[in-house]
Amino acid sequence: MRLSELSEHSGVSTATIKYYLREQLLSQGRRITATRSEYDASHLRRLRLIRALIQVGKVPVATVREVLAAVDDESLGRTTRLGAALWALPRAEEADPQAPATREAQALVEDLLTELGWDFARANGALSPAYRSLVTPLTRLLELGHPVTVTELTPYARQMASVAGHDFDVLETLPDDAERAETAVAAAILREPVLLALRRVAQEEESARRYGP
Amino acid sequence: MRLSELSEHSGVSTATIKYYLREQLLSQGRRITATRSEYDASHLRRLRLIRALIQVGKVPVATVREVLAAVDDESLGRTTRLGAALWALPRAEEADPQAPATREAQALVEDLLTELGWDFARANGALSPAYRSLVTPLTRLLELGHPVTVTELTPYARQMASVAGHDFDVLETLPDDAERAETAVAAAILREPVLLALRRVAQEEESARRYGP
Repeated sequence: MRLSELSEHSGVSTATIKYYLREQLLSQGRRITATRSEYDASHLRRLRLIRALIQVGKVPVATVREVLAAVDDESLGRTTRLGAALWALPRAEEADPQAPATREAQALVEDLLTELGWDFARANGALSPAYRSLVTPLTRLLELGHPVTVTELTPYARQMASVAGHDFDVLETLPDDAERAETAVAAAILREPVLLALRRVAQEEESARRYGP
Repeated sequence: MRLSELSEHSGVSTATIKYYLREQLLSQGRRITATRSEYDASHLRRLRLIRALIQVGKVPVATVREVLAAVDDESLGRTTRLGAALWALPRAEEADPQAPATREAQALVEDLLTELGWDFARANGALSPAYRSLVTPLTRLLELGHPVTVTELTPYARQMASVAGHDFDVLETLPDDAERAETAVAAAILREPVLLALRRVAQEEESARRYGP
């Protein structure tokens, strides 16, 4: 398709597409004549991912470039490639690693991972952004005086393991690793609010069932 | 306990506690002498909730007052009381209800609730903030060109139903409705990031199991 058609299909203005091309977030189309290039479905997909990152995720352009570099890096193993793309996304500010509440939260995460038998996550430990992204809100809870225990977290973790299993089943229906990594990133930004909203609706339904409307 | 002890136990300065007392976010202690009041565990609990709302949830003081009014309103039924407290929390900006993507998202939510047999949520429909909080991110997905189907959402919704069941099992261990409503509000703000982080850790573990580290 031509640039104007790519704009129409994606809802992104031609000026913005040209900006993404200049910034190398989007790869050049196949040159047909001196003034015309041809774009394909991969450009459209990439454009949707860039919009999700910038408009919804409020991700800065420099970070978008890092995320996309990981998505495109065929030299990475599959776990690393998916992980690298997600890890490049902005995260909540981390707690001071030396503060007592942080140490308590880390001990809690260690105990939880042992209880669950999640040995890979435990082996990676503090090197993994996923692990650190769990320490941060737990530290917050403890600092604010809300106690939290392994017993209480374990069922949630098991349910999230089941969600993660489903996440990968969906990813595996996609044809290649690049598209999987793109989808995982878009999902992290666009689908997390869906998951939380589903929980709220489920809570409302559960409350009505237990106590009446 | 005295004001100074309340400050020490909660980590909130006495000046800030006095401000919350003046703003009537926190109820007055029991007057002992002209210059001294006695505070109890309920003040400490309330103070922790206020901190969670203001510091983590970035909830404006006027909204904190609305949330607390719902938490404290004994005339409300249990479902309404829990719901009212949660519904008073700030939400993502809603999509234009007349836009085609919004109508498509609403139809999707209707079909999903029918498929799940969640009749209460469906009966409440667009009146319920939980329902609307689901329409918003789905509209976003559709607008940005990411298709989404009932088939794909159903397993997530069922897993969230299981999470919600556990949420209420935990709430029911608490002694009274006021404390349940407080806990539900603190949980909505402080524990949602924990749930999302658990999902990321679970994804990392699942990826390592399927594809190697």
